[in-house]
Amino acid sequence: MDQSNGKGVEEHEVRQRMREKEERALSPPSEEAEENMKLSVERIFEGQPVPSWRDQLTWRAFGMSFVLSVLFCFIVMKLNLTTGIIPSLNVSAGLLGFFFIKTWTKLLDSAGLLRLPFTRQENTVIQTCVVASSGIAFSGGFGSYLFGMSKRIAQQTSDTQDATDIKDPSLAWMIGFLFVVSFLGLFAVVPLRKIMIIDFKLTYPSGTATAHLINSFHTPEGAKLAKKQVRELGKFFSFSFLWGFFQWFYTADPDHCGFINFPSLGLQAYENMFYFDFSATYVGVGMICPYIINISVLLGGILSWGLLWPLIEKKRGDWYHADLPLTSMHGLQGYKVFLAISLILGDGLYNFFKVLSRTLSGLYYQLRDRDVGVALPIANGSSPEANEASFDDQRRTQMFLKDRIPNWFAIAGYATIAIISIITLPHLFPPLKWYYILVIYVFAPTLGFCNAYGCGLTDWSLASTYGKLAIFVIGAWAGASHGGVIAGLAACGVMMNIVSTASDLTQDFKTGYLTLASPRSMFVSQVIGTAMGCVISPCVFWLFYNAFDDLGQPGSTYAVPFATVYRGMAALGTEGFSSLPKHCLQLCCGFFAAAIVVNIIKDAVPKRWGRFIPVPMAMAIPFYIGSYFAIDMCVGSLILFIWEKVNKAKADAFGPAVASGLICGDGIWTLPSSILALAGVKPPICMKFLSRSTNAKVDKFLGS
Amino acid sequence: MDQSNGKGVEEHEVRQRMREKEERALSPPSEEAEENMKLSVERIFEGQPVPSWRDQLTWRAFGMSFVLSVLFCFIVMKLNLTTGIIPSLNVSAGLLGFFFIKTWTKLLDSAGLLRLPFTRQENTVIQTCVVASSGIAFSGGFGSYLFGMSKRIAQQTSDTQDATDIKDPSLAWMIGFLFVVSFLGLFAVVPLRKIMIIDFKLTYPSGTATAHLINSFHTPEGAKLAKKQVRELGKFFSFSFLWGFFQWFYTADPDHCGFINFPSLGLQAYENMFYFDFSATYVGVGMICPYIINISVLLGGILSWGLLWPLIEKKRGDWYHADLPLTSMHGLQGYKVFLAISLILGDGLYNFFKVLSRTLSGLYYQLRDRDVGVALPIANGSSPEANEASFDDQRRTQMFLKDRIPNWFAIAGYATIAIISIITLPHLFPPLKWYYILVIYVFAPTLGFCNAYGCGLTDWSLASTYGKLAIFVIGAWAGASHGGVIAGLAACGVMMNIVSTASDLTQDFKTGYLTLASPRSMFVSQVIGTAMGCVISPCVFWLFYNAFDDLGQPGSTYAVPFATVYRGMAALGTEGFSSLPKHCLQLCCGFFAAAIVVNIIKDAVPKRWGRFIPVPMAMAIPFYIGSYFAIDMCVGSLILFIWEKVNKAKADAFGPAVASGLICGDGIWTLPSSILALAGVKPPICMKFLSRSTNAKVDKFLGS
Repeated sequence: MDQSNGKGVEEHEVRQRMREKEERALSPPSEEAEENMKLSVERIFEGQPVPSWRDQLTWRAFGMSFVLSVLFCFIVMKLNLTTGIIPSLNVSAGLLGFFFIKTWTKLLDSAGLLRLPFTRQENTVIQTCVVASSGIAFSGGFGSYLFGMSKRIAQQTSDTQDATDIKDPSLAWMIGFLFVVSFLGLFAVVPLRKIMIIDFKLTYPSGTATAHLINSFHTPEGAKLAKKQVRELGKFFSFSFLWGFFQWFYTADPDHCGFINFPSLGLQAYENMFYFDFSATYVGVGMICPYIINISVLLGGILSWGLLWPLIEKKRGDWYHADLPLTSMHGLQGYKVFLAISLILGDGLYNFFKVLSRTLSGLYYQLRDRDVGVALPIANGSSPEANEASFDDQRRTQMFLKDRIPNWFAIAGYATIAIISIITLPHLFPPLKWYYILVIYVFAPTLGFCNAYGCGLTDWSLASTYGKLAIFVIGAWAGASHGGVIAGLAACGVMMNIVSTASDLTQDFKTGYLTLASPRSMFVSQVIGTAMGCVISPCVFWLFYNAFDDLGQPGSTYAVPFATVYRGMAALGTEGFSSLPKHCLQLCCGFFAAAIVVNIIKDAVPKRWGRFIPVPMAMAIPFYIGSYFAIDMCVGSLILFIWEKVNKAKADAFGPAVASGLICGDGIWTLPSSILALAGVKPPICMKFLSRSTNAKVDKFLGS
Repeated sequence: MDQSNGKGVEEHEVRQRMREKEERALSPPSEEAEENMKLSVERIFEGQPVPSWRDQLTWRAFGMSFVLSVLFCFIVMKLNLTTGIIPSLNVSAGLLGFFFIKTWTKLLDSAGLLRLPFTRQENTVIQTCVVASSGIAFSGGFGSYLFGMSKRIAQQTSDTQDATDIKDPSLAWMIGFLFVVSFLGLFAVVPLRKIMIIDFKLTYPSGTATAHLINSFHTPEGAKLAKKQVRELGKFFSFSFLWGFFQWFYTADPDHCGFINFPSLGLQAYENMFYFDFSATYVGVGMICPYIINISVLLGGILSWGLLWPLIEKKRGDWYHADLPLTSMHGLQGYKVFLAISLILGDGLYNFFKVLSRTLSGLYYQLRDRDVGVALPIANGSSPEANEASFDDQRRTQMFLKDRIPNWFAIAGYATIAIISIITLPHLFPPLKWYYILVIYVFAPTLGFCNAYGCGLTDWSLASTYGKLAIFVIGAWAGASHGGVIAGLAACGVMMNIVSTASDLTQDFKTGYLTLASPRSMFVSQVIGTAMGCVISPCVFWLFYNAFDDLGQPGSTYAVPFATVYRGMAALGTEGFSSLPKHCLQLCCGFFAAAIVVNIIKDAVPKRWGRFIPVPMAMAIPFYIGSYFAIDMCVGSLILFIWEKVNKAKADAFGPAVASGLICGDGIWTLPSSILALAGVKPPICMKFLSRSTNAKVDKFLGS
């Protein structure tokens, strides 16, 4: 009954890898500040008083957080439901939060109404709140396990449906579910924060980078650069929003009309899902993601849609029934989904064991050295001048330890919520028995600790892998006949929420540590952010769900690829390999092995070669949905590449802002567009692409 | 038998007005140089020897001129055949000529093979040759009188066609015709050049601006800026070319598919010809044209397609037969063509008399002062420091008078060519009797002188107006029953070529005067350029004519609007007002008067208000073809306007280069595109725009 094995959400892992790039992206704004930081950041800020933890929590901060949460929730949801690739939006959250509050305080100041100045602690509170809240949009599983339970997805993955295997989304139970599972991770990690941050001095690269960004914003040079970046962001935000609006008019039938169906590389390529679809979002995503991720996605697309699927299609009638519907999992669709799953699982498992071994060995050394009484800064990135660094460390440690959160509070909180959810969850998901949940909750804090520690060392959250194995373990335990699919998917949700929150919160604590924000205010901000997320995310999903009828249909704009993948995994876990079409198991084994081998090679060869080896996880994403978004992303990469060649400094300083603008503008356009769809307003024009011969036929038809 | 009345080509006049802008555009590159020029340009160049006139004529110069001539011929032809609006391409010709030769000489120099350095005199020779050659593409009348003779246009303008009223284009007679009429202007103006340039010291703003540009190129700062401008031009050239290429793929049926039929302002607006058609050419043209021209074109479009045509269409069945074909001149089409003609004639006549009166009064003062013995610099723009200026003047006059062209040579040349053309032209156009031509040739030198003088004062060539009245006079003289239409159109060609060449060549002499180029080398360059043009232009037209079957069809890409307008004028001249539909004459009189009134107001009010009053000639252009290109041009204006707001200096320095790049790239794409069309390669995809309801029908049709 081991629930603590590799389960999780693959997009999440790609997201982690994206952080590597983001750190680079985050550092340039603070170049100036970093120069200083190497000496001593806290000397610069020495004159500024640190507000008490209550004063760090202001109404304006939470008001702003709410607005940004809604914004980012739309963006994350759109990404969730289209491809499942979600770049880190910390830079945009940071920039926008800083900009709005700064404008607001400046206005108040000039009116003589300003009571509290805008501090970096307050900025950290906003950042934390927004990240917590928009994190729910992802870990809530609207693009994966949660929507995987629905009838729409069920109809695609299996031919025989049982009522026990289906749980259609509804606003009420989604909010309830999120509330009972999302807060556990918070309490689980609170007692560990001092060990991770002060004693182990873990790096938490993303958290550190965010802290650098916030610190730099509050120095005069940083603020000036931030303002310029915000202007750039705003420009591309407007462009991207207006472009989305313009596109809308020509999309009378979203499956066949408009720019999203533009056969920009020819009709033949379009039929095999190779086309540039003019999506500002994915061009922006491509600019944020590391080049190798973009190349991997494109390679995956070429391998699958360019090579494998046409080959397998030739076996139609031999390997699978010729008269199966296109969406049947026993036909070509099955190969697409299960080959993607094998790549994802292979890569996930390899990285799980890699991070686990580093975690264990790291822990071993830490504990050994701790016993000796010396805190070795194994992962301490900022100690060039020991003297000054120790001033920073002293001041930060002092602030960090001032406002404690009592352990009894954390333990009581965890126990209370655990009991509530053990009681309520089986009512929501009858196949998920109360003892499954109990078992998960017993192991969860350990897994959460492992994940938070590993993330501190490698910046790599394994929440996805932990969650994914929960599907298999609980699914198999429940069994196919007892609604194992639903049990597995629900268990995945429970597990993922705890483990993912644990690592995110510790990241935030690190950010708070570096910006002298109180752990207490961070905790409160996380709680409020999580609560916001639990309400906003389901509402936004509900809007999409009702506005777009073809949500979850393969080939549509909102294909929700990972919902199918997750349900496929659940089916695999409960029914075994019997659900696979002919020769699929062999192919799957091959891909599973290949993913592991590629990873081993990547780690074995020197880094200067290793960085050219593609990432199997990223390669798997286009397997199911096609490679049009890969082309968008590569266009983004190309733009950034050329920009870097032309003017490296400018590209580094403004690239992330431009990318964020593109993503945010297009993302926020989905709000009016879904409202229009709900109101029944349909676009007036169809921009259609026909081959010359078809066009002649159509002209004849229209003429007569 | 007075042939010297207002006849001409309206596009030409708009083109003249564009020069106002161009001069502004031309000056910034030479800002630095101008600063010096105010002191003394020739002091700067004092160290450089001036090559002999034979050395100014190099093989490389004519090689380059040939390449550029072909390039600009394509561009001018495309503009001719689409809207008839042709901006001055002197800047691009100057930039490109300078760049290519400079690169070439640098290469040779570094290889140690350079015999002659690249001088500004050689640069002037290239400029002159290219302008002469691409001028033929315009004054050859491929978009107006020449193509107006063809059957394609004849079918649209009248219902009964006589064989004598039609002369279909063919390569042989077009080249022959151009050769016998294009050289006359050259010889006519040669004896007058000293009077115009040295004695009268006329400004010739365009010629002066071009000279400034060339002078500035050959100073070190100027060369550096020119290089940057060329880079900018190259960038937008490539973009525009690739954009044209990309568009091509989606244009399976050019009348209904592709970006050129993009209903960017909605389907309703599209049906009334209001849409942005993504043409890089016209965006570029809009950037070169003065704002008021763009606004006038748009206003004209709104007035005609937004207001008048819908109103007249309501009278269908009352004012004209309800069952007439759409292209019949007795229906709506007739109103479109004849209202445009009235605006054009009204504006043209007003300006004819305005310039004529200024010419006569100017001449009167010149001659009076000359008798007194003092050459008053009435239009001398460059004499701030009398001393230094006189050094410039001395040196320039000395160079200008060194290489004389004997008067007997000019007179003999004129007589020879006149005799040849009097003999040959009646064979080409039987209705054009030899005595019509003789009469034209007797008056032509006087008219040529008037035009050259007026142009020197106002920068305004009236070639179009002179040519236009030739249609009426000769047309009426020949009479409808004796092929008056063909006689009128041919006479227009003869007249326009002489008068237009006269003013162009004098402009070039002014440029040569200011760059110390020898008049002899200028003359030779003009002759060679004209000869090139006489061959290249008909060939390029022939390519278009054969490649695009719908050339000249209303509503098609190549609508050749002025061919219809010219033929309409010829019909009016021979048949009188009987050819007009009901109430059209009244409307025409109204518009004719309005054009004159608007011009009077424009001249009467102070200039700061006058510049906001639209130009009637420009307003007439969209009457026939619709206002889609007006929207392109306004987009160009808007881009330039915003650019000027953001960074005036940069916009001034690089705006013309960007615009030229956009125009040239798209223009040169027509070369491969027409070759593809000739080879029978058709675009594979149709990008079609359907209303939602039609789309549903089509989907049903395609599905079944």
